[in-house]
Amino acid sequence: LTSKLPNTKTTIFTVMSKLAQEHQAINLSQGFPGFEVDPQLIELVNQAMKKGYNQYAPMPGLPSLREVLAEKVERLYQKTYHPESEITITAGATQAIFTAIAATIRPGDEVIVFKPAYDCYEPSIEVFGGKVVPIQLKAPEFLPDWDEISAKITSKTKMIIINSPHNPSGTVWTKEDMVQLEKLLKNTDILLLSDEVYEHIIFDGKKHHSASRFAGLAERAFITASFGKTFHATGWKTGYCLAPATLMKEFRKVHQFNVFCSNHPIQAALAEYLLKPEHYETLPNFYQQKRDLFLSLLNGSKFTFTPSSGTYFQLLDYSKITDEDDVAFAERLTTAHKIASIPTSVFNLNQQDNKLLRFCFAKTDDTLKKAAEILQAI
Amino acid sequence: LTSKLPNTKTTIFTVMSKLAQEHQAINLSQGFPGFEVDPQLIELVNQAMKKGYNQYAPMPGLPSLREVLAEKVERLYQKTYHPESEITITAGATQAIFTAIAATIRPGDEVIVFKPAYDCYEPSIEVFGGKVVPIQLKAPEFLPDWDEISAKITSKTKMIIINSPHNPSGTVWTKEDMVQLEKLLKNTDILLLSDEVYEHIIFDGKKHHSASRFAGLAERAFITASFGKTFHATGWKTGYCLAPATLMKEFRKVHQFNVFCSNHPIQAALAEYLLKPEHYETLPNFYQQKRDLFLSLLNGSKFTFTPSSGTYFQLLDYSKITDEDDVAFAERLTTAHKIASIPTSVFNLNQQDNKLLRFCFAKTDDTLKKAAEILQAI
Ligand SMILES: CSCCC(=O)C(=O)O
Ligand SMILES: CSCCC(=O)C(=O)O
Repeated sequence: LTSKLPNTKTTIFTVMSKLAQEHQAINLSQGFPGFEVDPQLIELVNQAMKKGYNQYAPMPGLPSLREVLAEKVERLYQKTYHPESEITITAGATQAIFTAIAATIRPGDEVIVFKPAYDCYEPSIEVFGGKVVPIQLKAPEFLPDWDEISAKITSKTKMIIINSPHNPSGTVWTKEDMVQLEKLLKNTDILLLSDEVYEHIIFDGKKHHSASRFAGLAERAFITASFGKTFHATGWKTGYCLAPATLMKEFRKVHQFNVFCSNHPIQAALAEYLLKPEHYETLPNFYQQKRDLFLSLLNGSKFTFTPSSGTYFQLLDYSKITDEDDVAFAERLTTAHKIASIPTSVFNLNQQDNKLLRFCFAKTDDTLKKAAEILQAI
Repeated sequence: LTSKLPNTKTTIFTVMSKLAQEHQAINLSQGFPGFEVDPQLIELVNQAMKKGYNQYAPMPGLPSLREVLAEKVERLYQKTYHPESEITITAGATQAIFTAIAATIRPGDEVIVFKPAYDCYEPSIEVFGGKVVPIQLKAPEFLPDWDEISAKITSKTKMIIINSPHNPSGTVWTKEDMVQLEKLLKNTDILLLSDEVYEHIIFDGKKHHSASRFAGLAERAFITASFGKTFHATGWKTGYCLAPATLMKEFRKVHQFNVFCSNHPIQAALAEYLLKPEHYETLPNFYQQKRDLFLSLLNGSKFTFTPSSGTYFQLLDYSKITDEDDVAFAERLTTAHKIASIPTSVFNLNQQDNKLLRFCFAKTDDTLKKAAEILQAI
């Protein structure tokens, strides 16, 4: 068998979490909360199972969950998505991303991807024969150069993928960035995949400028989002996709034969839990305190940084410490110093000699303190 | 946007379940149990959530679940799959099937599919540019003609998909069928996808001849299986895939970027629940009684049938009743007579004028009695 993805390795998240476990290191690599799900939400899932929500959910998702999502999006982003035809519940945001690509990308199609990028985009495009057209974002701002993007658009450009708040950099696109993108795509057939899984994790009073807010973007966009990241339940694997009906029709053609539907009792529980906006409105504050704690504890260390504006990740620059490349340094930190992070070159920064590691601060204060102690001593 | 799957419609299961609901019909169409999950299993999921199994599971699945599966497969089919490299837990068997196809099928590859076939195979192949090579199975036996298969194999044949116990016919392949397939594939590079989701639902003392039992098949096979169908929890969306390490490596390259992992608390619960083989060993008896009840209640009706040997489906021949095609008759049964079934032509029997409808008998005795009453009156 000749591999369809010869260059694809086991995802860095699996590699680093495993290494962390083997060396009993503090795991700030793979992004997942180190604290518990609200017991109220767990009890809602339990009740849903007891009430018998245990067979297939409707293929596009539980209607009540789609309705409460429609209300949320309308309230937050002033855009109406019709639950019946424009919202689909997925087995996590990753499945939503893969399915959107599956439904639209053919051999030879070009897809513009900003690097560094979350590691699922590239192989998902390639497995459908698409070609990744990378655009390098430069540290520390990690903002796009519009002339460069413009120059890279060809007649084969089928899709552009954006991600704000941005993993791994924590950069948040401004309204002006979105307007620029809207201008660029005007009068083209280029699709947009907007990965907005960190929509509720955003700091310093910044606002999330969802692609749904911009008519010229929304009309061409698959917007993918996550419940796991918002409700500290990444292992429940439930997310969703928003798209105009014409795009959603194609999305569902693949979705129904990829997973058919997503977990039913969890959907039933979320439909009820989401009725209270405070369950996600408190998130910016909650995570900003985490970020502030982590960064204040790093004061005086040899690591330097630009504070993250969103996501639960913080990049740390280690160029004052060593010349090692980021993979070697991340490994050494894990095995010798017992703290695991993500080397950013695997997010495709590649050649750039960036000396940046990504740390997840979605952890208890106690864990963050222990982590900072280690980092201070390096 | 030009559709990648122009001929794909909303899956018949969604269509018929919706129609059943709208007309308050007894729903024997989409295959799902009409009785509850074991409260013990529900409590195990609840406990898993409370114990904190709420973040990402390991990408290939929870090690303890993979281990207990390896033991089960070894005991039942005398074949050793290594939990570390040859077993992956998926978001349902459908995702396992889609992922196996994604990992291996390229544009132009031919895939042999027996018809009638479960409706996910064909679009999954086509979305990767593969070509479906159909082989028609003929009622009432629905067994393959080996000379016909032989004649359809070309240098482009990349994969063959089998499914025993067979949905929709309830046919179970014998050991000889499997040996024939083994002979046919010997000295070829053709891959096998063996959809064995009904492995534990098999009647009249028949035995499930898993592809894993046959060395010449196992070496080239992705075997896909389901927990939902076995434990009356189709809405929990958890299944798995078995394959030799070389194939599994490619499978996981896609799996990790399609869904990353499957639901963690459910995996933790299943790892414990599966320790007791009686939880699935009692299944043949349980469902055989259902089948026998349903068929005995149809005695004297105008429907004719060959009893199902496996799965929770029964085909009924209505040629003594009407000349209508199966879609029209299934619709009329649902709207006028309040009983929903699946027209088999959508499983690609197509041109064949077969007059067969599929009924799901995974229902309470009471529901089966009400259903039979209606069918008797037609
Ligand atoms: C699916 S594992 C990766 C989790 C994550 O979103 C990240 O660490 O970036
Ligand atoms: C995924 S809905 C279809 C359920 C099923 O397996 C069937 O009815 O054949």
